[in-house]
Amino acid sequence: MSDFSLDSRLQADCIELTQVNDIHVLLMNNSLLPWFILVPKTPHIELHQLPEAQFQHLMALQCTMARFIESHFTVDKINTAAIGNVVSQLHVHVIGRRKDDHCWPGVVWGNPQKTPYTDSEAQHIQQQLTRYLAD
Amino acid sequence: MSDFSLDSRLQADCIELTQVNDIHVLLMNNSLLPWFILVPKTPHIELHQLPEAQFQHLMALQCTMARFIESHFTVDKINTAAIGNVVSQLHVHVIGRRKDDHCWPGVVWGNPQKTPYTDSEAQHIQQQLTRYLAD
Repeated sequence: MSDFSLDSRLQADCIELTQVNDIHVLLMNNSLLPWFILVPKTPHIELHQLPEAQFQHLMALQCTMARFIESHFTVDKINTAAIGNVVSQLHVHVIGRRKDDHCWPGVVWGNPQKTPYTDSEAQHIQQQLTRYLAD
Repeated sequence: MSDFSLDSRLQADCIELTQVNDIHVLLMNNSLLPWFILVPKTPHIELHQLPEAQFQHLMALQCTMARFIESHFTVDKINTAAIGNVVSQLHVHVIGRRKDDHCWPGVVWGNPQKTPYTDSEAQHIQQQLTRYLAD
């Protein structure tokens, strides 16, 4: 999709880390949790509307990101979701949760607490992810 | 998994509709929204831990349930999620949302509003789903 552009809300809230198989990998700019967002380049807004190959790429990356979170952060649970009630552009959350995090056991959506990353923190995560995806 | 049993909280909150490929299909007993829960027979608690074939069956059924919801209910958006912070047994939510539903645009989790189905309402949904899955 040559005319695809990231939703402005996602751009404002997130840091773009990389792209994999035409899927943008974003880091929610909130260091309270390891919270990643996958945005496939598609005009569709529902997972089940994706062409099969793109759906498979997205699900594989969702699993990869869950493994990345487990191996690089201290987490007790992974939360994955495609919601899109506010930002309709199709995007999948992959979030590492801890039993002592600020909204456990509740969900993260709707919770306003936020501590932005420093530039060096975000760069460190980007470097870790780049290495992880290359292996 | 011969020794698999549904989590007691899921049993209490839901109505079992059917099983597909060793995946329990549950209806959340809340008629405010078409809210289905898929529970694969597995001891794993994270999606990315599932064996590949079981993961594929679960994702295919997730898509099928989204299409069932779109074709049998009036909805504006599908929400799908694997959270499991409270009930750790792996389960996937597939929920039809309306812009005039009781928690739009917020997520459903954590919202206490609930109107249980009548027996005939639940049976009707079960019959519709059985027919849909047989086609």
